Amino acid sequence: MTFLRFFCFFCLISLAFAHEAFDSHLLLKPLVLEAPESGENQLKEVDGEIRLRCDSWRFNVEANNLNPWRTIPKNCTEYVKQYVTGRAYQLELKIASNEAGIFAKSVKLVGDGKDVWIFDIDETLLSNLPYYTEHGYGSEGFKADEFDSWVQMGMAPAIQPSLELYKELLDLGFKVVLLTGRSEYQREATTQNLINAGFNDWDRLILRRDDDHGKPAVLYKSEKRSEMENEGFRIIGNSGDQWSDLLGMSISIRSFKLPNPMYYIS
Amino acid sequence: MTFLRFFCFFCLISLAFAHEAFDSHLLLKPLVLEAPESGENQLKEVDGEIRLRCDSWRFNVEANNLNPWRTIPKNCTEYVKQYVTGRAYQLELKIASNEAGIFAKSVKLVGDGKDVWIFDIDETLLSNLPYYTEHGYGSEGFKADEFDSWVQMGMAPAIQPSLELYKELLDLGFKVVLLTGRSEYQREATTQNLINAGFNDWDRLILRRDDDHGKPAVLYKSEKRSEMENEGFRIIGNSGDQWSDLLGMSISIRSFKLPNPMYYIS
Repeated sequence: MTFLRFFCFFCLISLAFAHEAFDSHLLLKPLVLEAPESGENQLKEVDGEIRLRCDSWRFNVEANNLNPWRTIPKNCTEYVKQYVTGRAYQLELKIASNEAGIFAKSVKLVGDGKDVWIFDIDETLLSNLPYYTEHGYGSEGFKADEFDSWVQMGMAPAIQPSLELYKELLDLGFKVVLLTGRSEYQREATTQNLINAGFNDWDRLILRRDDDHGKPAVLYKSEKRSEMENEGFRIIGNSGDQWSDLLGMSISIRSFKLPNPMYYIS
Repeated sequence: MTFLRFFCFFCLISLAFAHEAFDSHLLLKPLVLEAPESGENQLKEVDGEIRLRCDSWRFNVEANNLNPWRTIPKNCTEYVKQYVTGRAYQLELKIASNEAGIFAKSVKLVGDGKDVWIFDIDETLLSNLPYYTEHGYGSEGFKADEFDSWVQMGMAPAIQPSLELYKELLDLGFKVVLLTGRSEYQREATTQNLINAGFNDWDRLILRRDDDHGKPAVLYKSEKRSEMENEGFRIIGNSGDQWSDLLGMSISIRSFKLPNPMYYIS
C-alpha cells in the first residue's frame, strides 16, 4: 500500500530532522507534513501556458467564483501536484496562519472560557495529501469508500502552520472547537489521528450525526455555530479550507481560508 | 501627462484592431483595456523566489485573509506590475465573468423587472490601471486628491470581460445596478466615463451621499442592498473586486470576486 509507504516516509522525515538519538520517543513524534527543503520553485516544471491557465483557474477556485466544481481540469493535474507538494502551498498556509495569529493576539478575550476559535479538520488541521497522491490530486471524482478507509487508518499528517496556530491559540486562552464534515462513526479514528499529529487539546469535536447527513456543509456548519452562539460562546475566528466552512450564518469575526485546489465541498 | 499617453495608447489600440477604414466613428469607440496579444508569460521575468512569495501573498489577498492591508509589499511592485499588465489578470477576469454568465443563464427570472445584478465600478467595470501605473501599482498609499483628478478625467477604460458580461445580463433581462464607493459629486464624470467605455444602460447608479461618508464600504453597500430588497428587488448576482462589495447583509445569491492586488477597501 502506498499509504504505508507515505507513513514510513513521514516517519523517516521525522527521524532525519529529529536531531536526537533514536529512542522510543520517536515513535510518538507527531505526524507532520513538512515543507520541502529545496529552494527550487517546482512549478516552473509545468509548461508556461498551462501554468498560466491553471493559475487563473486556481485564483477563481480560491475566490469562490467556481461554485461548485467537481474535479480539477484534466490538464491541471501536474500543476496541482507540483503546487501541493511544493513550497507555494506551504507558504500560503503559513501566511494565512500567521495572519490568523496576528488577529488572535489583537483580540482582548473576555476570559470566561466562551471565546472560541473553530477549525475544520481535513486540509485544515490534517493533510490528506498521502490519499490524494493516490487519487490524481483531485482529478478523479470523490470515492467515499476509499476515502473512508484512509480516514480509518488515522495516518493523516498535521498541516504544520495550522498546528503552530492551534498551539498559539490555546496559549492565548481560546477555546478550540473542531467542526468537521466527518461522521460520528469516525470519531475514534479522527481523535487518534489528531492526537498522533500533535493536536492534544480541544473543547469539542463536532462530527455529523445521523440527522446532519444530506445537509450541505454550509448549512450543517452554520447550524452548529448557531447552537454554540445560543450557548453563549463568541466565535472569534474560524479556519477552513472550504468556503462552506466559513460562510453562512453565525459567522466568525474573522475567517481564514486555507488553500485547497484538490476538491470542493458545497 | 502619462494619463494622456495612456489615453492615446488605448485609442491606437482601438485603431489597430478596428478592421475598418478610419472615420469619425472611431472617436466613439469605447475605451477598452485589451488583453496583451503576446503568448509570453510575462511573470517569468520576476525572480523565482520573489514570485513565489508574491504569489503566496496574492493568494492570501484574494482569499480575504489579509484584512486590512494598506500597500503591496515593497518587493512585489514588479510582480504586481507584470501581473496586472499581463495575460494572467485578463484570464482571471475572463474566467470570473464567464462563470457569472453561466450562473446568470441558469437563473429563471421572474420577469417583473425586479431581478437585479449589482456591479461595482472601479476595477470591476472600469480599469484605473492608467492611474495606478503612475502610482506604483499599489505600492504607494492612496492619494485621494490625485485619484479624484483622474476620476474627473473620465478616461478609465472598460474591463473587457465585465463589459461582455454586462451586455449579456441586459440581454437576459436583468436589471443592472451600479453600486460604487465614488461620491455624488463624481456622478457626471462617472456617467460620461461609463458611456465612453461602452456601458450604456443601467437601472441605477448609486454613489455615496453626504451621510454615507465615513461608513466602511461593507456597511454602506449592505445598506444600499438592503434598501433595494425592501423595495422588492431580488439581488441575484454581484460582481466586485473587493470583498467589501460582496459580504455583509442582503448579499446576493452568487457573488463574483474579481482580482485586485493593487489596493484594499474595508
